Amino acid sequence: MTAAFPADVATGECVPPVRTGTPVRTARGYAAGKADYLTRLRKVEGQVRGLQKMIENDTWCPDVVTQIGAITGALQEVAVGLVSDHLRHCVASALRAPGTGGEQAIDEVTGTIRQVIRL
Amino acid sequence: MTAAFPADVATGECVPPVRTGTPVRTARGYAAGKADYLTRLRKVEGQVRGLQKMIENDTWCPDVVTQIGAITGALQEVAVGLVSDHLRHCVASALRAPGTGGEQAIDEVTGTIRQVIRL
Amino acid sequence: MTAAFPADVATGECVPPVRTGTPVRTARGYAAGKADYLTRLRKVEGQVRGLQKMIENDTWCPDVVTQIGAITGALQEVAVGLVSDHLRHCVASALRAPGTGGEQAIDEVTGTIRQVIRL
Amino acid sequence: MTAAFPADVATGECVPPVRTGTPVRTARGYAAGKADYLTRLRKVEGQVRGLQKMIENDTWCPDVVTQIGAITGALQEVAVGLVSDHLRHCVASALRAPGTGGEQAIDEVTGTIRQVIRL
Repeated sequence: MTAAFPADVATGECVPPVRTGTPVRTARGYAAGKADYLTRLRKVEGQVRGLQKMIENDTWCPDVVTQIGAITGALQEVAVGLVSDHLRHCVASALRAPGTGGEQAIDEVTGTIRQVIRL
Repeated sequence: MTAAFPADVATGECVPPVRTGTPVRTARGYAAGKADYLTRLRKVEGQVRGLQKMIENDTWCPDVVTQIGAITGALQEVAVGLVSDHLRHCVASALRAPGTGGEQAIDEVTGTIRQVIRL
Repeated sequence: MTAAFPADVATGECVPPVRTGTPVRTARGYAAGKADYLTRLRKVEGQVRGLQKMIENDTWCPDVVTQIGAITGALQEVAVGLVSDHLRHCVASALRAPGTGGEQAIDEVTGTIRQVIRL
Repeated sequence: MTAAFPADVATGECVPPVRTGTPVRTARGYAAGKADYLTRLRKVEGQVRGLQKMIENDTWCPDVVTQIGAITGALQEVAVGLVSDHLRHCVASALRAPGTGGEQAIDEVTGTIRQVIRL
């Protein structure tokens, strides 16, 4: 599923994962927001633990469902943020590089957007 | 937001929460599936922790977003299950009881469905 | 897909469709709101025609997509309204009738809610 | 809401709309797929008219809702296609042009993705 398109060699942040050979660990397009994403995901983790407490404590069902809606929204916000970062860094550098990597990067991000919508 | 509609007094499982006075803890419509919901939510919690690991390890953005799509889907499955249980127990007993509690129960569950869709 | 559950024989509004034999045309749970739903759907039809005009006139892509979001939302509002009417009439009468029709009605409406979420 | 970012002057297809002054009508990023989008939207229009017929004919509510789910899905497919075309043409040319237009284009398309998700 992961396309191999020309990467921003200067920063290395957009080298897509290689499924074979020695994986190269590089920074990603979301590098600058990493701490913020981690904070938000830790909050989501706490909310999912909170859901379990609600079920254990026999909370009124509509109140549990309302909380699930809030968590789903928070996760989708993270997803949209990641897609935006990805466009700003990896897709942008693929588009600026010579060759057809930009096309592939856009095909891949289109598939990613479909995942967010669950289409 | 929580409607006060006639409850299944026999089982007590559908007594809505009282915001004032002494709260009565009762079983809920999802009582029979409680263990299953908790198992699924613990799995979701693990997946959210996995997301944090992915971000920490600089995972390729589209792969992170795909995983968010999977988690969102799992949470929505839980929400639909809870709504279905709620219809089967609390809304059903409110509809069978005399009075206008059934109407209120349906108004409330309609609002709950809107939360699931995030409408 | 359509369950055959006990109907509100008095009003006939909740007799589910029969796939074989002579179909009986009856009023439905949304009968009281029929004119309103038709008005809203005619507006949606006009909006979809407007989308075609936007494409023909080479409208800026984000503006077209924003309009699609509005139409999708309007359709989901209609869907939630229909589900609510269905609960209030057909599911309610199935639940009040003796037998297991209520269970079947709730199974069916759960499937319907999944369609609205596109789960 | 519409950003004014550097356009692909060569083709003119990505000149964003100007709210004041003489509007310039140009081809858009979805130009190549225009006929296909119009065909799909005409089909959606027919489906919305079909929905009205279903309501007029007192169709079983879950069947109407299932059809709404199908239409919503078709509209979201169009939206994702338009976003993909927009990335491929207008965002790409803005990113390749000198200046900060690429940033603005990505901010705008991020907002557009949020509209598709109805976030």
